[in-house]
Amino acid sequence: MSKEITSRSEDYSQWYNDLVIKGSLADYSAVRGCMVIKPYGFALWENMRDALDKMFKDTGHVNAYFPLFVPKSLFEAEEKNAEGFAKECAVVTHYRLKSNPDKKGALMVDPEAKLEEELVVRPTSEAIIWNTYKNWIQSYRDLPILINQWANVVRWEMRTRLFLRTAEFLWQEGHTAHSSAQEAVEETVKMLNVYEDFVENWMALPVIKGVKTESERFAGAVDTYCIEALMQDGKALQAGTSHFLGQNFAKAFDVKFSDKENKLDYVWATSWGVSTRLIGALVMAHSDDDGLILPPRIAPMQVVIVPIYKGEDSRAQINAKGQELVNSFKAAGIRVKFDDNDNSRPGWKFAEYEMKGVPVRIAIGVRDLENNVVELARRDTKEKTTVSLDGLTERVSALLTEIQQAIYNKALEYRNSHITKVDTWDQFVETLNGKAGFISAHWDGTAETEEKIKEMTKATIRCIPLDNEQEEGKCVLTGNPSKQRVLFAQAY
Amino acid sequence: MSKEITSRSEDYSQWYNDLVIKGSLADYSAVRGCMVIKPYGFALWENMRDALDKMFKDTGHVNAYFPLFVPKSLFEAEEKNAEGFAKECAVVTHYRLKSNPDKKGALMVDPEAKLEEELVVRPTSEAIIWNTYKNWIQSYRDLPILINQWANVVRWEMRTRLFLRTAEFLWQEGHTAHSSAQEAVEETVKMLNVYEDFVENWMALPVIKGVKTESERFAGAVDTYCIEALMQDGKALQAGTSHFLGQNFAKAFDVKFSDKENKLDYVWATSWGVSTRLIGALVMAHSDDDGLILPPRIAPMQVVIVPIYKGEDSRAQINAKGQELVNSFKAAGIRVKFDDNDNSRPGWKFAEYEMKGVPVRIAIGVRDLENNVVELARRDTKEKTTVSLDGLTERVSALLTEIQQAIYNKALEYRNSHITKVDTWDQFVETLNGKAGFISAHWDGTAETEEKIKEMTKATIRCIPLDNEQEEGKCVLTGNPSKQRVLFAQAY
Repeated sequence: MSKEITSRSEDYSQWYNDLVIKGSLADYSAVRGCMVIKPYGFALWENMRDALDKMFKDTGHVNAYFPLFVPKSLFEAEEKNAEGFAKECAVVTHYRLKSNPDKKGALMVDPEAKLEEELVVRPTSEAIIWNTYKNWIQSYRDLPILINQWANVVRWEMRTRLFLRTAEFLWQEGHTAHSSAQEAVEETVKMLNVYEDFVENWMALPVIKGVKTESERFAGAVDTYCIEALMQDGKALQAGTSHFLGQNFAKAFDVKFSDKENKLDYVWATSWGVSTRLIGALVMAHSDDDGLILPPRIAPMQVVIVPIYKGEDSRAQINAKGQELVNSFKAAGIRVKFDDNDNSRPGWKFAEYEMKGVPVRIAIGVRDLENNVVELARRDTKEKTTVSLDGLTERVSALLTEIQQAIYNKALEYRNSHITKVDTWDQFVETLNGKAGFISAHWDGTAETEEKIKEMTKATIRCIPLDNEQEEGKCVLTGNPSKQRVLFAQAY
Repeated sequence: MSKEITSRSEDYSQWYNDLVIKGSLADYSAVRGCMVIKPYGFALWENMRDALDKMFKDTGHVNAYFPLFVPKSLFEAEEKNAEGFAKECAVVTHYRLKSNPDKKGALMVDPEAKLEEELVVRPTSEAIIWNTYKNWIQSYRDLPILINQWANVVRWEMRTRLFLRTAEFLWQEGHTAHSSAQEAVEETVKMLNVYEDFVENWMALPVIKGVKTESERFAGAVDTYCIEALMQDGKALQAGTSHFLGQNFAKAFDVKFSDKENKLDYVWATSWGVSTRLIGALVMAHSDDDGLILPPRIAPMQVVIVPIYKGEDSRAQINAKGQELVNSFKAAGIRVKFDDNDNSRPGWKFAEYEMKGVPVRIAIGVRDLENNVVELARRDTKEKTTVSLDGLTERVSALLTEIQQAIYNKALEYRNSHITKVDTWDQFVETLNGKAGFISAHWDGTAETEEKIKEMTKATIRCIPLDNEQEEGKCVLTGNPSKQRVLFAQAY
């Protein structure tokens, strides 16, 4: 095998990069912090996007598209939002290049083509969208607005990682407008539930739903709800967020509506998003030292069939059977590839599809055909079995469902065994050093303590779980009284 | 009706803007030259995109995603391409804003956060993509690469029009790499045919396939193939282009492959694209003075059912029948809406759906129900008929097919009656002034004559049709010898 990957125990971070690159999901690019999403990675994203898009539409949302650029004066209108994103935004200042007189064939920014007002490349679209909603909303009859946008955004991060943190990334951002606080909060929670449903049932990744502390809130939000997942190195990863924005953006952009009694009030808002970062979570949650492990429901290829030829005679016979299987699988809605490429040997192909995380591999040789069987290999457990060709499609279909559940169960078991209740500071530090995942501990509710813990341990409060039990206790750091435990972890 | 639109005869250009705005396709934005694509317009684009995407995949292409930004040094590598786009590109020069000390709450570009190298917001992606292909291609075994990208691009146009010419627009751009010139040319033509198929059979818009003259070629192409459509004001509109790029980009980015004999050669390239501009073409080609006329295959809503209540008694009965029809239509794959909104009267709804170009409108009143009939209205011909409820789904399904064909036929008849053979300069000018559409005339083959005609009349050579007859003649302007006619027109 030419494509060796670093093992998790050796270097988790390098293992991750190896998987992304050698699993053909993405590649580095010539642009600092930006990546190329390769066809295999993009096919994965398309499956995720299509599933989410359907869920959004089924809950009454429609798609639209707003400009990439945000004029500086709009960008700065909602003060907290502006403050939160100002430090990491790409700014367009000119609209033309011209020949560089000092260097043949080279171009330079044309100083005469300076924009009157700088344009920020959207890091998020609340500003440009609420500035537009202002023109669309007069009365309660114009509400709610339930719009989603699939788009690219740019945040100029200093330290980037493929998928997890890139300067440009793809995402969806929902932006809704409502006539009451209650309706907006309900929308916020509804979309959090949609994310939970998607991440658990499509990505096979269990999540904890919760609310962020004030320090971890989205810039400009009244409340940020989140789903948090656990990676195999014990670090948490925020997999999606849904924000109740109150009337902050309506006030910043002066968006009012008249209610049924003809009384004017500011409009209530939510926004919610998930991004290509989810692909990073997927890779880190399920994969092993031999490559990716993809849940069948979103895998670009669910089944690969590898023919094992012995001489030219068997070829036609095997190919005919292979094609028959492909047709039968496709008819059953299974995404399948028959790999009859002559340039590589079966062993090389096995390793390649293992690397790419194809859930089920079928090998057919001439002896198998004589015995009316094939070899079936599961990517997740590496189990191999010899099974009859009779009823194979139904069997594979059931197996895909079984694998989806097995991957989820494994991740759930891992996650559940990595939540530790901790009551002293020593235990807290010890548990963290042991990469034990989430720590459930009391906290005194102050931003100061939260910040101090972060400085000392790099652990942050991931969330206050939605279904949290109330329990009297003492803050793990300060000993001050606390009414509930919160979830700490180091995080991506 | 509150939503009046300017008539075509009064002011064609205003008529177009009215349709786009009042038909809820798009809206102006706070960003110069950029528009907001509204949910109804975006649903139309989604239908177009999905149909095209399937055609691309059916012809062996895969999707991927490349960075939004092109570092200046890459942008300038292919000289003609750079020259062509330098004059209209948005340039990112800084990566941070900071508080403006002179103005409370305001931000300013942080001069300390200047990029070492400026980043061009992609006006097209050949440069960033071929710089990536360099790392992916070593041998003929790595070829062909058949990649498409759905993305936003930015071209800083000075005079913009909704959909037709916006600073930012959405498009797809195919970028393929091949081991021979012949294969690349075949790909170029194949994709031109895909565009023709899509525009004619989905958008109901007849096109002429041809090749551009050298002056009208894409910057960096060896040959540009195009499809040209005709609008109702006699102007042409380039609806899609497919470029044979030769080895220009491979040479600029040093992309070589070793062939079967282990000989090194530069890779051959194509690129091809269509954009949201197609929506502008759609609007201008088919619509009338009462609003949009959308072809059923891409219409977001194919059928709308409007209930006509008379008192509360009839309401439940009509709603039950309406829901029954919706279910039956949906089961038949028809996109249908039952509009039981109480806030507006039937007459207002009729006008609204006429404006939005919904192909078929069904009205149901209580008398209709008693007679087991409904009123069926076609948007394109405005014909109304009373038809039986029995077999209505099949009837509507067939009607949608009929309307699709009728819209195409009407556009084809118009187009065919607007191609005028012209042999003298006087005729040429006279025909142009009569808004007669395409002019088929002899041209001496020089860029000088082409330029002179453009200056004198604003007419350009739209294309040299692919199926052009060879015919001896004299250039319509210079009288110099010519071997074939070419198609002139004023164009969008």
